[in-house]
Amino acid sequence: MTTPFRDVRMTGFGPRIPVADVLTLLHQRVQPLPTESVTLDQMSNRILAERVLAPVNVPAFAKSAMDGFAVHSADCPGTVHIIGESLPAQPFPRRIAPGEAVRIMTGAPIPAGAEGVVPVEQTERSGDQLTVRVPIPIGKHIIRVGEDVTQGTALFSPGWRLRPQDVGILAAIGVGTTTVIRRPRVAVLVTGNELLPPGEKPEGFHIVDSNSVMLAALITRDGGRPATIQRIPDQPETIRTALAQAEADLILVSGGTSVGTEDHAPRVLAELGELAVHGIAMRPAAPTGIGFLPDGRIVMLLPGNPVSCLCAYDLFAGRVIRRLGGQSWEWPFRSQVVPLASDVRSVVGRVDYLRVKVESGQAAVTAGGPSSLSSAVSADGFVLVDAHQELLPAGEMVTVYLYA
Amino acid sequence: MTTPFRDVRMTGFGPRIPVADVLTLLHQRVQPLPTESVTLDQMSNRILAERVLAPVNVPAFAKSAMDGFAVHSADCPGTVHIIGESLPAQPFPRRIAPGEAVRIMTGAPIPAGAEGVVPVEQTERSGDQLTVRVPIPIGKHIIRVGEDVTQGTALFSPGWRLRPQDVGILAAIGVGTTTVIRRPRVAVLVTGNELLPPGEKPEGFHIVDSNSVMLAALITRDGGRPATIQRIPDQPETIRTALAQAEADLILVSGGTSVGTEDHAPRVLAELGELAVHGIAMRPAAPTGIGFLPDGRIVMLLPGNPVSCLCAYDLFAGRVIRRLGGQSWEWPFRSQVVPLASDVRSVVGRVDYLRVKVESGQAAVTAGGPSSLSSAVSADGFVLVDAHQELLPAGEMVTVYLYA
Repeated sequence: MTTPFRDVRMTGFGPRIPVADVLTLLHQRVQPLPTESVTLDQMSNRILAERVLAPVNVPAFAKSAMDGFAVHSADCPGTVHIIGESLPAQPFPRRIAPGEAVRIMTGAPIPAGAEGVVPVEQTERSGDQLTVRVPIPIGKHIIRVGEDVTQGTALFSPGWRLRPQDVGILAAIGVGTTTVIRRPRVAVLVTGNELLPPGEKPEGFHIVDSNSVMLAALITRDGGRPATIQRIPDQPETIRTALAQAEADLILVSGGTSVGTEDHAPRVLAELGELAVHGIAMRPAAPTGIGFLPDGRIVMLLPGNPVSCLCAYDLFAGRVIRRLGGQSWEWPFRSQVVPLASDVRSVVGRVDYLRVKVESGQAAVTAGGPSSLSSAVSADGFVLVDAHQELLPAGEMVTVYLYA
Repeated sequence: MTTPFRDVRMTGFGPRIPVADVLTLLHQRVQPLPTESVTLDQMSNRILAERVLAPVNVPAFAKSAMDGFAVHSADCPGTVHIIGESLPAQPFPRRIAPGEAVRIMTGAPIPAGAEGVVPVEQTERSGDQLTVRVPIPIGKHIIRVGEDVTQGTALFSPGWRLRPQDVGILAAIGVGTTTVIRRPRVAVLVTGNELLPPGEKPEGFHIVDSNSVMLAALITRDGGRPATIQRIPDQPETIRTALAQAEADLILVSGGTSVGTEDHAPRVLAELGELAVHGIAMRPAAPTGIGFLPDGRIVMLLPGNPVSCLCAYDLFAGRVIRRLGGQSWEWPFRSQVVPLASDVRSVVGRVDYLRVKVESGQAAVTAGGPSSLSSAVSADGFVLVDAHQELLPAGEMVTVYLYA
């Protein structure tokens, strides 16, 4: 599937690679990163790289599930004598005999000899005398040793995404650090002599770089760590140096990837390593390029047009980041299935990425071409027109992937 | 709806407040926080507090949508003379006459006089001679001034959650900072003499605090900022001091909220401010308390049992955090509608929070009571049994809210 390098500058692309083939290539060549160790405060949403067996029973001692009184079953219902109390971490120190009860709090250790707990609401107290109004079967309201987690149980397997409660149970079993897939470091290189840094005002023929802030937000959303953001001029040597030096697992290059005279990134990438893909059968983002450096770093050449950049990110770069990070590479988007508001024409063999707004229960394509970021800003999500589809007629049910 | 304080310690709750009433109270009394100013790198996922009008046209100059040649329409198809080039931020300096063409890159300024752009793929070049193979109507492949964003357009309204592309367009129009709702600062106070800090191993009758790490992850998920996490003993004075001093918009107290002798938090809260709710008609998490301090800080008393804590968070605390932060307080969870695997009994008037696993397309309640965090760890999500329901029979279609 690798395409030998052909300089397309000012001659145009040759045959474009189908989107499906690009996805197959990426799925084969991109694998989860090595692992790292993290502490509890950093575990949420991370992908486990190890199997976790419970090293202890939870609870390690029988404890009360209720605020009430620890009693003998044979005494209930009936009247018993309160001889002390059991508080969390302050157990009642001796065995209780028939006719005796111990005041107990939720979570406190069950005194030796006690067979059950009667909730405070089902008792009446007068001094040290306690009247239990209900029968208390053996084991009632007692949390047994290992009832929550039994020592030796496999709690989690590699690949599991840790949710808040999962981090909680790791704390409960005494785990303080665990091994997870490392978060991908992603470098962003924005090329373009016309670009001003975000935060400045557009002036004359200079425009403000909007892709870097958009990409940084997307990378973070997908669990990546934006490493460096560099704006560099459209010069082969500068691009070469920046690619060679970027300390990252993935380098996203924005701009300079097409067929213009100033589009140097594909040639530089081919010289430094491998340009595996350049020119994809899709609209927008056809000029997208994908390659690999000899040390394994992945390079994705995203078009400079903001919508093309977003499209190439959604279709390819986001998936690569999630896969590097050990996550599913499927889209994290919610989706909705609604009828299309009007006809959409495409070309067989090409995938189209439509920005749509869901209005009155229908998906309407928003105004604006690939240079119009407003077409994505005014959209609720996107619809893909598959390669085999030439026409999506109005009323056709389509899946809208909602922008997150 | 405010309940006058009644000391329920070791006597049990009185009538419990319906979940729906608690939600009404919270919705009325919790309002979005004041605003703050943030820079572009912090805008993603924030809630706008201002209306954003575009101060400029994007683009501010007519530019090319393609790599190709700027031409006169009347010359196409036909042969023209290449007289120079227009690169981004390096426009061709003079007007082009009929019969002339200028090589142009995507995004470069359209030279004066040019009427359209012919893509490089539709041309043949021989030295300075260019053969254009297709007609080029006026305006073809030219991005007009203001085509993406017209100066003065209202781009966003207050309350809008900024997505990555929205941050991009703000950069493009020259916005460097914007006003958003402040992220709620949330303090977590964990009470319990039996608790060891997360990261330690459980020992003897001491257990490890798992709620603080779980709550910190939940708070972050919902856009809050975990401020301080404090573990404090079950002493009224310590709780009073911690409540009084917590620098936060919301204080979550874990543990010590029920009817045991060591449950001081409700009384302390009633003394310092207002205990608006204590005892809710739900299972688990019935002992949940909610109140307000005189300076407006919100206090939520969450049960110490980990599942009860999670339940009270999901039903109330998460909603409060999202509402304080200007977000919708609806659940951020994906959901699935599937049949219930077996009968579930409840009590009319009470809301039940069931942890369920979705297996073979059915929702099966997981094993374990409110002290068993494993019941939430082994679950894919939760199902609510509404207050009016006494029995959910096997096969009943239920909505499973998937844990995120």
